[in-house]
Amino acid sequence: MRKRGILFVVTGPSGVGKGTVLTEVRKQKDVYFSISATTRQPRAGEQEGIHYFFLTRQQFEQKVAENGFLEHAEFSGNCYGTPAEPVDTRLEAGEDVLLEIEVQGAMQVHQARPEAVRIFLAPPSYEELEKRLTGRGTETEEAVRRRLETAKRELKLAPEFDYIVVNRTVEQAVSDVLAIMQAESCRAERALLDAR
Amino acid sequence: MRKRGILFVVTGPSGVGKGTVLTEVRKQKDVYFSISATTRQPRAGEQEGIHYFFLTRQQFEQKVAENGFLEHAEFSGNCYGTPAEPVDTRLEAGEDVLLEIEVQGAMQVHQARPEAVRIFLAPPSYEELEKRLTGRGTETEEAVRRRLETAKRELKLAPEFDYIVVNRTVEQAVSDVLAIMQAESCRAERALLDAR
Repeated sequence: MRKRGILFVVTGPSGVGKGTVLTEVRKQKDVYFSISATTRQPRAGEQEGIHYFFLTRQQFEQKVAENGFLEHAEFSGNCYGTPAEPVDTRLEAGEDVLLEIEVQGAMQVHQARPEAVRIFLAPPSYEELEKRLTGRGTETEEAVRRRLETAKRELKLAPEFDYIVVNRTVEQAVSDVLAIMQAESCRAERALLDAR
Repeated sequence: MRKRGILFVVTGPSGVGKGTVLTEVRKQKDVYFSISATTRQPRAGEQEGIHYFFLTRQQFEQKVAENGFLEHAEFSGNCYGTPAEPVDTRLEAGEDVLLEIEVQGAMQVHQARPEAVRIFLAPPSYEELEKRLTGRGTETEEAVRRRLETAKRELKLAPEFDYIVVNRTVEQAVSDVLAIMQAESCRAERALLDAR
């Protein structure tokens, strides 16, 4: 029988660099990257089933009612969620799955799938995150302030995760995430052993 | 304050390749490798404090009485043990420590230091271990048979360890052990986080 895949959840505050780190991880490791569902309109260039599964609000609510999401939330009037079915299909086929979600969603996944391996990507310091978010220059002072308030709350949740990877450099963070994925596949409760 | 080092215990049945794998790990990672104490006579070329700490039986028993070993056992009339003090000194200084010990000793270390990360090095199969042990050609059939009996018992203990690394190739096993060491340093309960 084939081993079941491992579900890896990577989260962290806005601006910490989740996207950059995971793009690099996916180049180096063959893993199914979960695609979110959303009720927001596709932006230019976004494709169904590649960037998002685009759903109407009615379809989304139907799926919520059927318990079809590992986690879901509403942001600025749009719903986002992680459909359970594609994830579970891959896991059952023995494939590892990677989720990139925000912190509250990661907490929800822990409820839905307690066996998930949860990685918190943290900035080297709060000041560093502040610098990164301010440096973007694409948002109002008020929006940055709100993000930082949220980040402060989220950083306090880090100890509840299995791993904390500090994003000092992208190379180091990528190497840490890859090491965690490799090490978890050696966990005794998962390893198959021909111990007759 | 400096982080405390991590204690890694690597074990596995006789013939599985612990020595070969760990020699390579130590070339690639800076880690303090624990030196055992023994009451047996030094063999040609063996140096005090490099290969072993050589003790008289009286000295050894004194140390046992003082709870000075993380584990100890007797084999063919000689005592062997892992002195606690050099290990604890390194851990307190923030250095990681690697112990290579036999399976019963590893179980004892778990009692003495429950926070130790315990890795079981396993053969790809029982048949493969049989082949390796027989192939040595340095022992009587009876000695090999006894080693295999012990190995069979020990393999059953593998699920009690934190990790099981299957020694299919030395390269893969070394890479797995290094990944485990790196991942463990990211464990949330150990990571320091500046989460103000």
